[in-house]
Amino acid sequence: MTEILEKQREILAVEGLGALIAASPENVGYSVGFMIPSQVIPIRKRQFYSIVTPDKEALIVVNVEYKEALANSAIRDVREYNEFTEDPVDLVVEALKEFNVTDNRVGVELDFIPARSIDRLRTTLPKTEIIDAERIFDRMRMIKTPAEIETIREIARIVDQTHAEVYRNARPGITEMDIALMFIEGVLKRGASGMKNLVVGSGERSVFANCPPTNRVLRHGDVMRVDVFAHLNGYLSDIARTSVVGSPSKEQHQIWAKLCKAESLVFAMIKPGVTTAELWRGFLDYFTKAELNPAINFLGHSIGLTLHEEPFIDRYNNYVVEEGMVLVIEPVFATGAEQYHLEDFVLVTKDGCEILSDGRGQLPVII
Amino acid sequence: MTEILEKQREILAVEGLGALIAASPENVGYSVGFMIPSQVIPIRKRQFYSIVTPDKEALIVVNVEYKEALANSAIRDVREYNEFTEDPVDLVVEALKEFNVTDNRVGVELDFIPARSIDRLRTTLPKTEIIDAERIFDRMRMIKTPAEIETIREIARIVDQTHAEVYRNARPGITEMDIALMFIEGVLKRGASGMKNLVVGSGERSVFANCPPTNRVLRHGDVMRVDVFAHLNGYLSDIARTSVVGSPSKEQHQIWAKLCKAESLVFAMIKPGVTTAELWRGFLDYFTKAELNPAINFLGHSIGLTLHEEPFIDRYNNYVVEEGMVLVIEPVFATGAEQYHLEDFVLVTKDGCEILSDGRGQLPVII
Repeated sequence: MTEILEKQREILAVEGLGALIAASPENVGYSVGFMIPSQVIPIRKRQFYSIVTPDKEALIVVNVEYKEALANSAIRDVREYNEFTEDPVDLVVEALKEFNVTDNRVGVELDFIPARSIDRLRTTLPKTEIIDAERIFDRMRMIKTPAEIETIREIARIVDQTHAEVYRNARPGITEMDIALMFIEGVLKRGASGMKNLVVGSGERSVFANCPPTNRVLRHGDVMRVDVFAHLNGYLSDIARTSVVGSPSKEQHQIWAKLCKAESLVFAMIKPGVTTAELWRGFLDYFTKAELNPAINFLGHSIGLTLHEEPFIDRYNNYVVEEGMVLVIEPVFATGAEQYHLEDFVLVTKDGCEILSDGRGQLPVII
Repeated sequence: MTEILEKQREILAVEGLGALIAASPENVGYSVGFMIPSQVIPIRKRQFYSIVTPDKEALIVVNVEYKEALANSAIRDVREYNEFTEDPVDLVVEALKEFNVTDNRVGVELDFIPARSIDRLRTTLPKTEIIDAERIFDRMRMIKTPAEIETIREIARIVDQTHAEVYRNARPGITEMDIALMFIEGVLKRGASGMKNLVVGSGERSVFANCPPTNRVLRHGDVMRVDVFAHLNGYLSDIARTSVVGSPSKEQHQIWAKLCKAESLVFAMIKPGVTTAELWRGFLDYFTKAELNPAINFLGHSIGLTLHEEPFIDRYNNYVVEEGMVLVIEPVFATGAEQYHLEDFVLVTKDGCEILSDGRGQLPVII
């Protein structure tokens, strides 16, 4: 965790900032090395702030979670407020004054901090130049530390193995909710910290991007799309498979084979120096040749303490791929009535990539 | 759902507003009648807005969730944006112009809308008077509709029954994570939509307010605190029990009996017209007489699409209790090393309250 505070200090120097202030669950969690429960639940009106200056740092938490914070936080200067009588922004101001950075430029997450809180900060500290720290935090989180990579490797393994197990054991006639429970059991027994969310869309529901499981019964001929958002110490999975209940048609086998081939082509291109625009173009060229249209306007993204992180791989952005990035590659194809989705993790290495989960191969069949 | 749009229109008239704009998961969900998956996961950089004017309404969603929104939203005018190329605030502005309310006062959730978005809204619509809608939404959600009450009654029943089942079936030697899995299975098989979060703190971990389950093994003599945040269509439970592994001491039985008595005393006071300050005072008088100190600075709160809703029952606020409120009563007592927690739901009726979950009785024992 000291490593992440050091990264923040390097950026303070490069950007000429007096302090970096995090407010979102992921950036506070990143700064202190654990996800704060009230931010995860969320009890969103409870605010949390981490403040890092060149030589000081502080964490501001609601008093009922002071004990948890003291027990877990990498930032040891923990300050508590009463949610009914105090405004946590006042504790931020107090810390900035104490740390002598109120005459400096200060980075704040303007894509997260609520309007009322920024108004109070601006009014209370009129001499402080507040700049938007969104990109600073996003870029900082793009390259994973060795500890983060270890955690992500493990959650990818857990979810990959659980996918394989569930389709072997599932039977027609059970419900989407039964499938959900099998996944929850599967990831927990393999060591996941929890199941954050789970997408289970069968039959006509397969077209919905992020639909939760229902009591819909799996019937012969159904396509079922499952996307698993489990986590290990806050680090998320986002690994999807599509299966068919009963006997898949020849066309269904072909669609799946094409998704696998698309993934393989992209994996082969991934190495430091390639751009995300090149990956998108390579994917799109193949999909077009294979007579598939992409169902969504992106091929992938990174992941970590949030589900969608930079770099995005799509038609709009362009990033240079670097060693230490984790990329989530997800070719998706939709007919009018059904959606097919394959999604896996790779880690960018010195000269290529390490595949962290791998759904390529035979189309999963539930019989 | 029409009922909730009607409630918003009544408030527009009372407050003299041209529009109410919701942005948070709970208030957008409340307006449209379902929780938007990206807000639940959350993919927090995707923004969603509901806009209600005296005669129009619109919902703004990211394009990948347009299909889900169309299939589920009570607001039928659904408008989509591309998250990579468009700012959803611009769609809000466009709708406000189209609805002819830009010269009016407009209510926006200033406790949620991010700094950058409010800056854009203020700059683009300099003539629009933006007021803080936090209290408007909070107050609106205090009195539950009949449909909400039905859902809350059901999730309370599901969780209450699951608590009872788990302590009967649990055995010393299993882990907190095993307990978690028993709860997840228990609530799903009884019809819950999902387990949002789960607090399992045994032994020395019982003192942490919101700790997730770990692989800690339950040992003879442990106190275990479990608080269950399951949900039915987004409506949450927050129902806690404390159990003892092995043979509880006489003192532990006494502490539990006092928590039950505290709850009973408060239940007996609840009826329309009583104030939350009176409830807090009644609770505190009894706790003092019983030689217990409250471990947290509140006795309870309401609940719904978020975990902590108004009215709060504590030493700082004061509200008049009304028919149709759901109150969550949670006496908590901590020794230095252990924490005891009992938490149940009641619905305020015409002349008293209906108990929706009931943990009073014998101290749960795991043997």
